[in-house]
Amino acid sequence: MSKNKIYKPQPISGFPEWLPEQRRIELQWLDHIRRVFESYGYTNIETPAVEELDVILAKGETDKEIYQLERLQADERDSSDARLGLHFDLTVPFARYTAQHFNELDFPFKRYQIQKVWRGERPQAGRFREFYQCDIDVINPEQLPIAFDAEMPLIIDEILRSNGIEGYTILLNNRKIIEGYLAGLGLSEEQRPLSIRIMDKHDKIGADKVVEMLVSELNLDQAVAEQCTQLFSISSSDDSFAQAVRDLGVENDILAEGLGELSEVMQILNLKTQSTIKADLSIVRGFDYYTGTVYECKFDNDPGFGSIVSGGRYANLAGSYINRQLPGVGISIGLTRLLSKLFDEDKLDIGRKSPTDVLVVVPHKDKRDDAYETGHALRSRGMNVEVYHSAGKIGKQLGYAEKKGIPFVWFPPFDEEGAHEVKDMANGDQIEADPNTWVVPIK
Amino acid sequence: MSKNKIYKPQPISGFPEWLPEQRRIELQWLDHIRRVFESYGYTNIETPAVEELDVILAKGETDKEIYQLERLQADERDSSDARLGLHFDLTVPFARYTAQHFNELDFPFKRYQIQKVWRGERPQAGRFREFYQCDIDVINPEQLPIAFDAEMPLIIDEILRSNGIEGYTILLNNRKIIEGYLAGLGLSEEQRPLSIRIMDKHDKIGADKVVEMLVSELNLDQAVAEQCTQLFSISSSDDSFAQAVRDLGVENDILAEGLGELSEVMQILNLKTQSTIKADLSIVRGFDYYTGTVYECKFDNDPGFGSIVSGGRYANLAGSYINRQLPGVGISIGLTRLLSKLFDEDKLDIGRKSPTDVLVVVPHKDKRDDAYETGHALRSRGMNVEVYHSAGKIGKQLGYAEKKGIPFVWFPPFDEEGAHEVKDMANGDQIEADPNTWVVPIK
Repeated sequence: MSKNKIYKPQPISGFPEWLPEQRRIELQWLDHIRRVFESYGYTNIETPAVEELDVILAKGETDKEIYQLERLQADERDSSDARLGLHFDLTVPFARYTAQHFNELDFPFKRYQIQKVWRGERPQAGRFREFYQCDIDVINPEQLPIAFDAEMPLIIDEILRSNGIEGYTILLNNRKIIEGYLAGLGLSEEQRPLSIRIMDKHDKIGADKVVEMLVSELNLDQAVAEQCTQLFSISSSDDSFAQAVRDLGVENDILAEGLGELSEVMQILNLKTQSTIKADLSIVRGFDYYTGTVYECKFDNDPGFGSIVSGGRYANLAGSYINRQLPGVGISIGLTRLLSKLFDEDKLDIGRKSPTDVLVVVPHKDKRDDAYETGHALRSRGMNVEVYHSAGKIGKQLGYAEKKGIPFVWFPPFDEEGAHEVKDMANGDQIEADPNTWVVPIK
Repeated sequence: MSKNKIYKPQPISGFPEWLPEQRRIELQWLDHIRRVFESYGYTNIETPAVEELDVILAKGETDKEIYQLERLQADERDSSDARLGLHFDLTVPFARYTAQHFNELDFPFKRYQIQKVWRGERPQAGRFREFYQCDIDVINPEQLPIAFDAEMPLIIDEILRSNGIEGYTILLNNRKIIEGYLAGLGLSEEQRPLSIRIMDKHDKIGADKVVEMLVSELNLDQAVAEQCTQLFSISSSDDSFAQAVRDLGVENDILAEGLGELSEVMQILNLKTQSTIKADLSIVRGFDYYTGTVYECKFDNDPGFGSIVSGGRYANLAGSYINRQLPGVGISIGLTRLLSKLFDEDKLDIGRKSPTDVLVVVPHKDKRDDAYETGHALRSRGMNVEVYHSAGKIGKQLGYAEKKGIPFVWFPPFDEEGAHEVKDMANGDQIEADPNTWVVPIK
């Protein structure tokens, strides 16, 4: 290749790519999340990266953000191919999967799904075009027990806490409470969606500004607008939030239903006062398909970073595919967002760049078979082992181990009478050892 | 949603989607492959699903098969965005990654990468548009030791054998042998690529037909064409293939170099006669970028199925990005192809549909806290546990465990004096047990 055609590749904006030592941490997180999901009996599925555009667009809203696929040199025989797009979340593919394989699944169907999703949004801090989502959802025909609404935040809390994350709160609300409360205040069905969108901004613009906008954009009375925002300050780690709402004096059937559901969830959770899970009536989720419980998780000292966990209950997401009601509830961890924050804040212990525990040296060519045999013996007992890739100077081989952070170097016998020895690179200790019994010492 | 707008989703041709019980097997394979890769000291990376089209197209050849991305509603501010395509393999992204992060990596850089790749080919039996590739590669500046060429088939052999696969052979050749042999026979630099493409078909059309095509399309003498095909019948599990080639009486420097390299690889491998790894001079790899050792793996009783494993050595795949020679060698398992064959042939033990080991029953509502506590105790010792999602009839809860194939059902005490009991669903035995000490019995 000609030297004057060097093309230095650049990162693609919005598509994160980690170095090996960062990827090792991401893998540990992926394993951890998977293990906790499975420990609650969720089973894994994986759906293709693509869905038919009709499926993706059925829920509207996000069409601007979708990547569509084109074959670079499509010919005529492709005209029958369905139009495909990359999935922008894992909930829509899950609903489609459940409907498509309905007769082969057992219900309640509890699944987890850990995959990349793609959104063609403008990249900005903490926002990516490609990122990992780690989802659990349960779908059940006709009726879905409310116990699942309580299980979701418990599982997320266990994942975050047992992996050393601190200073977060998982917040619960119920869409029916907001809807019913606004209806009870006299807002019409047309006024409510816009009001909710305005109220959703209160984190960023503050309650005063929300009142101002409700008055100016919806022509609400100042007093009514102020009443709208009174929900924001109500939160509790038990079911006492419900009485606080009732004390506001608004009466509505949907409101009562929402208060009942969220109270039951909080009763099942039966939390301690200092809990990282809370009912918080200021939470409003963006997606229209949520119809009951909704979840968000925020960092207490960085609420502006936005949610790293979100989800909720949907009445019938798969309903356009099948002649049944299929209610579901689910929650999702935005792992790429979370890790990128932790990397940026230097909060993660970056370890070594390689999984290798032991490097076996090859002193000369005719000792290679012995070295390979030693490597196999150590591997057969669960260690990660490299046999050095060429025979020769021991100093060079030790240098390789040092550079890669390989903690132990193994010396097979140099002659008939010699013994196996292993060197601890951290302190330089070198001892005799048997490849069939030696284990990595616990430090 | 209106009932007369039911849209039954269909599978998308070429994009496989497994049921939960199949996905469990795929996950076991993915874990197994990863474990063996790491046991040889390979470190994981993951690259985005997309690359700039310029990067993908730099190696030409496959442009017809590439999926390009378009934002569904791209606006003007996107005009600066690079044109993106889904990667069609993991070798091109790896070469780009190595060049881009060159200063942050340690060499020889040994990486594994397990991701989906996409090709817009016409779907047919055993061919997919989306499929898993599981790759290992080593790249080193300037010189790459030949020991890595020997390590590749060893690792693949261990993965297949230790996961119960039988009746396969991993075949090795060296591009220089074919190139040099044809050059030694007097074929010009222009004639050789077409000759190699024709020779590559001998598996499907047979040696006689290859001779016929070489004569008719390249105007070769019948005798020369016959000489071309004499390589096909040479194979050995040691380095004796080299003498067999020399006995054909063709002299050429590149040929001698290739024989020397493949001999050294076979000497390092030092195999038993009945080995599943063989030097086989009939192997020709499709991709142009291979320049030395090449690999294929075939099922002995189904050679027409094609290769489930392939790879080779490349002189300088990353050379267009950086002012250094970056030789590499790698091998790849086409996991989706392999699994789809095993599923089709019913060769895999399909297990239960859920990871749950124990279902904890909730006899009535006020026992829910106890049931949750029992669930936590069992989970904390590594078990996968579901607490039943609503209080009530025990028979219904047992039915749920049966339907899902959950092997054990746990009964927390029904009253103050009661004891915990666990029921083995396979034989109906029910015994007293302590959630803090009980373990799943080994059968």
